[in-house]
Amino acid sequence: MEFTFQVPTEIIVGQACIRKNAEKFSQFGKKALVVKSGSAEKNGSLADVLHVLGEQGIEARVLDSVPPNPTPEDVQALCGYAPEFTFVVAVGGGSAIDAAKGVAILAVNDVEPAAMYDRSYPNKPLPIIAVPTTCGTGSEVTAVSVLTVGDSKQSFSSPHVLPKVAFLDADYLRTLPMRVLLDTALDALSHSAEAYLLVDSWSNDMIAEQAFRNFAKYKDAMLRREFSDEDRALMLYTATLGGIAIYVGGTSAVHTMGYPITVLKDIPHGRACVLTLGEYIEFAYDAKKEKIDTMCALLGVDGVGGFKELLKSLIGETVTYTREEIWELVEIAAEPAIKKRNAKPITREDIFEIYCAALCREQ
Amino acid sequence: MEFTFQVPTEIIVGQACIRKNAEKFSQFGKKALVVKSGSAEKNGSLADVLHVLGEQGIEARVLDSVPPNPTPEDVQALCGYAPEFTFVVAVGGGSAIDAAKGVAILAVNDVEPAAMYDRSYPNKPLPIIAVPTTCGTGSEVTAVSVLTVGDSKQSFSSPHVLPKVAFLDADYLRTLPMRVLLDTALDALSHSAEAYLLVDSWSNDMIAEQAFRNFAKYKDAMLRREFSDEDRALMLYTATLGGIAIYVGGTSAVHTMGYPITVLKDIPHGRACVLTLGEYIEFAYDAKKEKIDTMCALLGVDGVGGFKELLKSLIGETVTYTREEIWELVEIAAEPAIKKRNAKPITREDIFEIYCAALCREQ
Repeated sequence: MEFTFQVPTEIIVGQACIRKNAEKFSQFGKKALVVKSGSAEKNGSLADVLHVLGEQGIEARVLDSVPPNPTPEDVQALCGYAPEFTFVVAVGGGSAIDAAKGVAILAVNDVEPAAMYDRSYPNKPLPIIAVPTTCGTGSEVTAVSVLTVGDSKQSFSSPHVLPKVAFLDADYLRTLPMRVLLDTALDALSHSAEAYLLVDSWSNDMIAEQAFRNFAKYKDAMLRREFSDEDRALMLYTATLGGIAIYVGGTSAVHTMGYPITVLKDIPHGRACVLTLGEYIEFAYDAKKEKIDTMCALLGVDGVGGFKELLKSLIGETVTYTREEIWELVEIAAEPAIKKRNAKPITREDIFEIYCAALCREQ
Repeated sequence: MEFTFQVPTEIIVGQACIRKNAEKFSQFGKKALVVKSGSAEKNGSLADVLHVLGEQGIEARVLDSVPPNPTPEDVQALCGYAPEFTFVVAVGGGSAIDAAKGVAILAVNDVEPAAMYDRSYPNKPLPIIAVPTTCGTGSEVTAVSVLTVGDSKQSFSSPHVLPKVAFLDADYLRTLPMRVLLDTALDALSHSAEAYLLVDSWSNDMIAEQAFRNFAKYKDAMLRREFSDEDRALMLYTATLGGIAIYVGGTSAVHTMGYPITVLKDIPHGRACVLTLGEYIEFAYDAKKEKIDTMCALLGVDGVGGFKELLKSLIGETVTYTREEIWELVEIAAEPAIKKRNAKPITREDIFEIYCAALCREQ
């Protein structure tokens, strides 16, 4: 067994944790760029951040809301070169936090967005504080940013864009639309499941298995569409566990297959990924029997069949596509999905089959 | 639920992990102080460290072996003021790693050892790389150093002495005497159990509960006194989990009660702690019923009675003391033990009772 374990981000959990830990902001200087989702006003997170920045005498520039599934050009348009700033606060879902990672680079490097991808920027990115307001992304504890490029998504990474601090206050989930709450929780499940099957590491297994145990605790609330404060708190924390899992393990073809569904068909990221997760787990079963059995047991479902049933119930009504549309998705996803590490080696045909079983309206 | 989760130390696990990760050493400069246990030659760890330092062109000064249970004065005598060095490598058990934390301070601060305790040193301690060669201490992932002061032990802490990197290579446990292997594994269990009962945190519970699950896997090997490579690897990793648990949760009266047993009666630290652990758990049971039941279930023992039986079998033959000797221990341990956070508030009388039940030869 060879592996590395580290959780570099300081993860601060609890109600009102931002206001209770104001001093965490001032360690990064006196001028903050605030990158936010459109929902950051409504859920109260932006007000808490601005309150604390003001209290600490930190000047804040709040950027325009990040559009869903931003492109590198969107990221550059948010702020551009602004080297007088000393840190970035990211408030929102995955789109906002991933965009903030780009802002952290481009604010101190007068370069084209492509430089984020080939790391051809001379200056160290600004430190980031992340405040996730959905229970999916995990980006608050990863060094990766996934942006929309063409018909799919592409990621860049740098240890410097790994957030220094993440604040998890589940009160921000209260105003989240039910569908977003469900889809992002499923995205988090996908992170843990994908990473669990990709690496064999005692520490990553511990993280993912804990995520499965937690999911089992709130899955009935998800099925009922009724959540207690405790459920939301555990869902938010479990999403961060999923982030820790992919920080080490990465994601697999499931995510790659989800990207064109989001970009071409406008299906939100979490939902797009989990649409094919059940079929992927079935595909991988012979290679990862023991782990998949463990996962199903911890989730409290009856094998892969039970897992697929659970996902179906949680996904609810879904769109379907023609075989022609599915070939279009395969064209985009196959090459990067095959190149990725996977639970077992995957072919173009496997990808077509998985998409079809999950999404085809023509049998 | 309010808590913080972070594992700042980069924990690198696996056979030959030092030689496979030589570049981790050169990031800290070109002059290393090597602080080691007496056993570091025999178990091969020192040779690996010196090989890698040589390979990276790093000048190394190997200090005299750290005596067991070192005092602050012992720590100062190891090296003293040597500000030309850029980092410290600690190779050994808890005594060596804890001493290295002192060396990291005193090498760059021309001060008396007492300054480690009141933090009255002006310069930032040197970075530390830790190589634990017992499966107990956890010091490789904590910011605390516990040294012998008078008839007991006292700790100092600083975020700067938290090791940056920890290498866990279980091959170094192969030459460990059976008694040390058992006692240090019990120390690690005590860390996880104490921290588990001290804090309620989803993340720390996850760490401690995983430590209990792991312990259950190798407890039969401990009872048989026969270990596979896999057992040793899991024991070493589980000791680090115990360290992560106390990094957040700290230790309780069990450790404080163990210190004078070590200093006055010359019983090794891990053994000294675990001698009273069973009685402490029984004492705390009414306050922490649910957690203690969970712990026992994960350890695969039948309640607190089963837990005490297991410890007894693993401790083997032990010394006993007169009531007079026990009062002497109480005199030393009571005040600091009462001041510590505990699973439930503890009195001087409780401490006497726990010591007596565990160690008294006069009933």
